[in-house]
Amino acid sequence: MFTRAAENIVAAADELAKLVAAEPEARPELAARVKDAEHAGDELTHQIMVKLNSTFVTPFDREDIYRLASSLDDVIDAMEEAADRIVLYRLGTLPQGIAVQVEVLRRAAVATAEAMPGLEKMAQLREYWVHVNSLEDEGDEIYRTLLGDLLAPQPGTTSLDVLTVLKIKEIIETLEEAADAFETVANTVESIAVKEA
Amino acid sequence: MFTRAAENIVAAADELAKLVAAEPEARPELAARVKDAEHAGDELTHQIMVKLNSTFVTPFDREDIYRLASSLDDVIDAMEEAADRIVLYRLGTLPQGIAVQVEVLRRAAVATAEAMPGLEKMAQLREYWVHVNSLEDEGDEIYRTLLGDLLAPQPGTTSLDVLTVLKIKEIIETLEEAADAFETVANTVESIAVKEA
Amino acid sequence: MFTRAAENIVAAADELAKLVAAEPEARPELAARVKDAEHAGDELTHQIMVKLNSTFVTPFDREDIYRLASSLDDVIDAMEEAADRIVLYRLGTLPQGIAVQVEVLRRAAVATAEAMPGLEKMAQLREYWVHVNSLEDEGDEIYRTLLGDLLAPQPGTTSLDVLTVLKIKEIIETLEEAADAFETVANTVESIAVKEA
Repeated sequence: MFTRAAENIVAAADELAKLVAAEPEARPELAARVKDAEHAGDELTHQIMVKLNSTFVTPFDREDIYRLASSLDDVIDAMEEAADRIVLYRLGTLPQGIAVQVEVLRRAAVATAEAMPGLEKMAQLREYWVHVNSLEDEGDEIYRTLLGDLLAPQPGTTSLDVLTVLKIKEIIETLEEAADAFETVANTVESIAVKEA
Repeated sequence: MFTRAAENIVAAADELAKLVAAEPEARPELAARVKDAEHAGDELTHQIMVKLNSTFVTPFDREDIYRLASSLDDVIDAMEEAADRIVLYRLGTLPQGIAVQVEVLRRAAVATAEAMPGLEKMAQLREYWVHVNSLEDEGDEIYRTLLGDLLAPQPGTTSLDVLTVLKIKEIIETLEEAADAFETVANTVESIAVKEA
Repeated sequence: MFTRAAENIVAAADELAKLVAAEPEARPELAARVKDAEHAGDELTHQIMVKLNSTFVTPFDREDIYRLASSLDDVIDAMEEAADRIVLYRLGTLPQGIAVQVEVLRRAAVATAEAMPGLEKMAQLREYWVHVNSLEDEGDEIYRTLLGDLLAPQPGTTSLDVLTVLKIKEIIETLEEAADAFETVANTVESIAVKEA
């Protein structure tokens, strides 16, 4: 079920990548698809919780399972929130860096989906953990540059009006939250691995 | 003591509800009452910690008790911060949605206070957990709409000056934090329930 | 190793204090030194993790060690982010309160470094925990006042343009994050102490 939850996140990241590349008119439909993925994710989280509460022997610590499910949920929630905000704020063209930020998220989603089936053999998980952490660093770098360019535009670029600055700031912050949530997933997996070792 | 801490949060939420409905001149006194409740909450948290450190056998995991006390503390801290900011920013009329946001907090406070005495019989707690999570969803929806209307005002409405936008943004974000902190309380209770099951 | 990590944070806080007192031209070099300290911190965190994974018997719970290392990391990350932003945003003179905020961080760093060698005898740790919590309260007070003055300037002061308001807001928020992260370190230490008791 964790594998399915992570694959669902990959699907959401794919739609989000299309959304940030799309014309404003095409965005609401793509945002609706991200929302659908988020609902599917909620359903999976719910199933994991029900199974957890009805099972006597669990493969790992109950709390870790709980935490892993919650943090996967946080990832997709932040993605959906970003999609929703882009539509809600009626934004025109988005800064280029946002597509790069989403691409990092998509790669973190793929890495996470690939790691999930391996939860039972812990050895390969370290590689995944290192990978997601380095993606988070990369995402953080992009986030900082985007925020810097937004608040202190490079000389020679046209500056945005302040409300637009605020809108874009909200969006890049939400995408950064999604990247952080991937790191929390990886840390939870790491913490399971530490216990199993 | 957890029941008293949760009832204290209900009291703080009641004063906060009055504050957001009040005229600007009446706000400082109501904010002072929220601050009083926060101080009373600090005292209760301190008592819980002292008791925890002087007791050999505890009803639940020590760490869960610690986490529950901390998260109840986070709820009331965020409420107090919101009250403080409304006064500090010398705001005039607040957007209507803020009262709705506070009403959701008040309902989460009541649900939490009702759940606390039941901490010893875990069965009813699931209902509480579902309830607070759905209140958090509701609060999140209101928060998003408020933020959307703030940053992308509906056509035909008068737009606020940017500093006022920033002030109101801070306040609705702090209220959203309070709603999140209620969810953390519920998740901690859930995590105790999972262990006891 | 935790002692070295905490001493490294003191070094970072010292450079950050110099940075916020320096002229704009001198800032990039000082920010580079904060970044060096952050890299040294990353190296120490990595060493702690490697040692943790290769040791059978650990002095405390593995997860607590993990959490302590992570939260020390969060402290220095937030400091580095603040330093980076001050340079990146090409800010002129900073509001006075920022130096006060950094001074509180420096004191929290010193208190943390002094507590680390005592991790083995738990008795003195309570004093440290109380100290860092009161520093966090102090920092929070300064943060609120700074934010208040920024968004609702005292009558008679010249008001800043909105982009500058946003830049300074980002910086004081990042410094507040560093203060919060110190509190998380203290809470983790407290949670170790509770278990050992």
